[in-house]
Amino acid sequence: MAVLLESQFDELPPDKSIDTKIFLENVSKIPTFFDCLGSKVFTVIKSDITGNITKIRAVYVKDPAKYATLQDILVAEREAHGAEWPNVGATLALMWLKRGLRFIQVLLQSLADGERDENNPNLIRVNVTKAYESSLKRYHGWIVQKIFNAALLAAPYRSNFLKALSKGEEVTEEDCFANVRQFLVNYSCVVDAIYEMYTNLNAELDYTV
Amino acid sequence: MAVLLESQFDELPPDKSIDTKIFLENVSKIPTFFDCLGSKVFTVIKSDITGNITKIRAVYVKDPAKYATLQDILVAEREAHGAEWPNVGATLALMWLKRGLRFIQVLLQSLADGERDENNPNLIRVNVTKAYESSLKRYHGWIVQKIFNAALLAAPYRSNFLKALSKGEEVTEEDCFANVRQFLVNYSCVVDAIYEMYTNLNAELDYTV
Ligand SMILES: CCCCCCCCCCCCC/C=C/[C@@H](O)[C@H](CO[C@@H]1O[C@H](CO)[C@H](O)[C@H](OS(=O)(=O)O)[C@H]1O)NC(=O)CCCCCCCCCCC
Ligand SMILES: CCCCCCCCCCCCC/C=C/[C@@H](O)[C@H](CO[C@@H]1O[C@H](CO)[C@H](O)[C@H](OS(=O)(=O)O)[C@H]1O)NC(=O)CCCCCCCCCCC
Repeated sequence: MAVLLESQFDELPPDKSIDTKIFLENVSKIPTFFDCLGSKVFTVIKSDITGNITKIRAVYVKDPAKYATLQDILVAEREAHGAEWPNVGATLALMWLKRGLRFIQVLLQSLADGERDENNPNLIRVNVTKAYESSLKRYHGWIVQKIFNAALLAAPYRSNFLKALSKGEEVTEEDCFANVRQFLVNYSCVVDAIYEMYTNLNAELDYTV
Repeated sequence: MAVLLESQFDELPPDKSIDTKIFLENVSKIPTFFDCLGSKVFTVIKSDITGNITKIRAVYVKDPAKYATLQDILVAEREAHGAEWPNVGATLALMWLKRGLRFIQVLLQSLADGERDENNPNLIRVNVTKAYESSLKRYHGWIVQKIFNAALLAAPYRSNFLKALSKGEEVTEEDCFANVRQFLVNYSCVVDAIYEMYTNLNAELDYTV
């Protein structure tokens, strides 16, 4: 479970505010998740997500006290940018990043729940497709959706994916899923809280790329 | 012709050595070419190429005298890296960059030569496909080839592409092509010389991604 254990998220405080520094630390280990998918094709996605994180960090380090929580960042950028907001800065970067985080959340949850294609039990296409539909599809135009369908063919076998998630460690499938479920507890709360924040601040955009 | 005129390449000297500094200056305007394609899908390609240029520049600035020509870089890296070379450093970056440059060369040449699909005279798919087959296809596995085929659907109409190439300027199609042909003279010599150098130094690799 190396990959996921490296980015154990903390429990959220009651007000669901998310500490920017800790969030950035945890989330910066996430891009390596895409290496578990085992194909060069996913490098592109890894660098899109890395770009989001870099953008958020660049705002944070300008004034760590002012930007102590993710909510602080959105509120400050709303002040600073007027009509351009939320299509700008760390607000835009986190808007896209959260979709990638949701993709991972739904993919892992679906695997841990044992959802699978009985005719192809060693493929994870149903799980990847479910994750895509819950997170990104509606923000992608038809051409990018077609590209997704082609990229789906590069998705690893289920067994290889689980092995990659547990990299280096000899674990049973059940141990692996126990770790996934453990990881998902706080991770899902953080992702859900970010979505809630975007809804509350009316910061969500639904243009397609 | 704004986009291309901004990166007029110089005539090569008789020994066909390529001045690194001038090459980097000219080629750094090339990534904006992909904006002419008019779809967000191509941002990915733009950043791959930008990455190549950044990598070559990083080597050059370490010792501009030592790395005065592109050939100097390859020879120095061959010395420095032993068995890993040519799969390393600026040698690897330029190996991929030249394929993107060849793609652009063949695409523009094919358009200037008037090659087109008589049934779809306002599409450039035949030209893009020809460029792809002459430059990149053999270095792409079947999944990336499928992704290319999907991305091809995002290629602009011929008229829009020509307009974008001449950005801001009102030019006739014939003037536009005259500019393209003018641009291609030195540009093609430079691209050909880089290919020749890779052959002569035995620096070419043919793995697929
Ligand atoms: C030569 C042959 C090749 C031809 C060309 C092929 C090109 C293929 C390109 C396909 C798209 C790759 C994915 C990237 C898509 C990106 O376009 C989107 C939007 O990206 C956002 O855009 C914003 C502006 O609108 C800002 O720039 C954001 O940047 S900012 O930080 O500056 O604000 C940026 O993240 N991100 C996304 O859709 C996010 C994607 C996350 C993916 C999550 C997992 C999916 C896994 C799939 C598994 C099967
Ligand atoms: C969520 C949904 C989305 C799902 C995911 C979709 C993902 C789609 C990804 C498709 C591939 C995008 C194109 C990039 C491909 C790249 O993989 C290759 C090799 O790239 C090289 O790799 C090396 C190591 O092997 C070094 O890292 C080089 O980097 S180094 O500088 O560090 O040494 C790097 O350039 N470059 C290429 O193939 C070059 C591509 C040039 C393209 C030229 C024009 C094509 C125009 C086409 C018009 C129709």
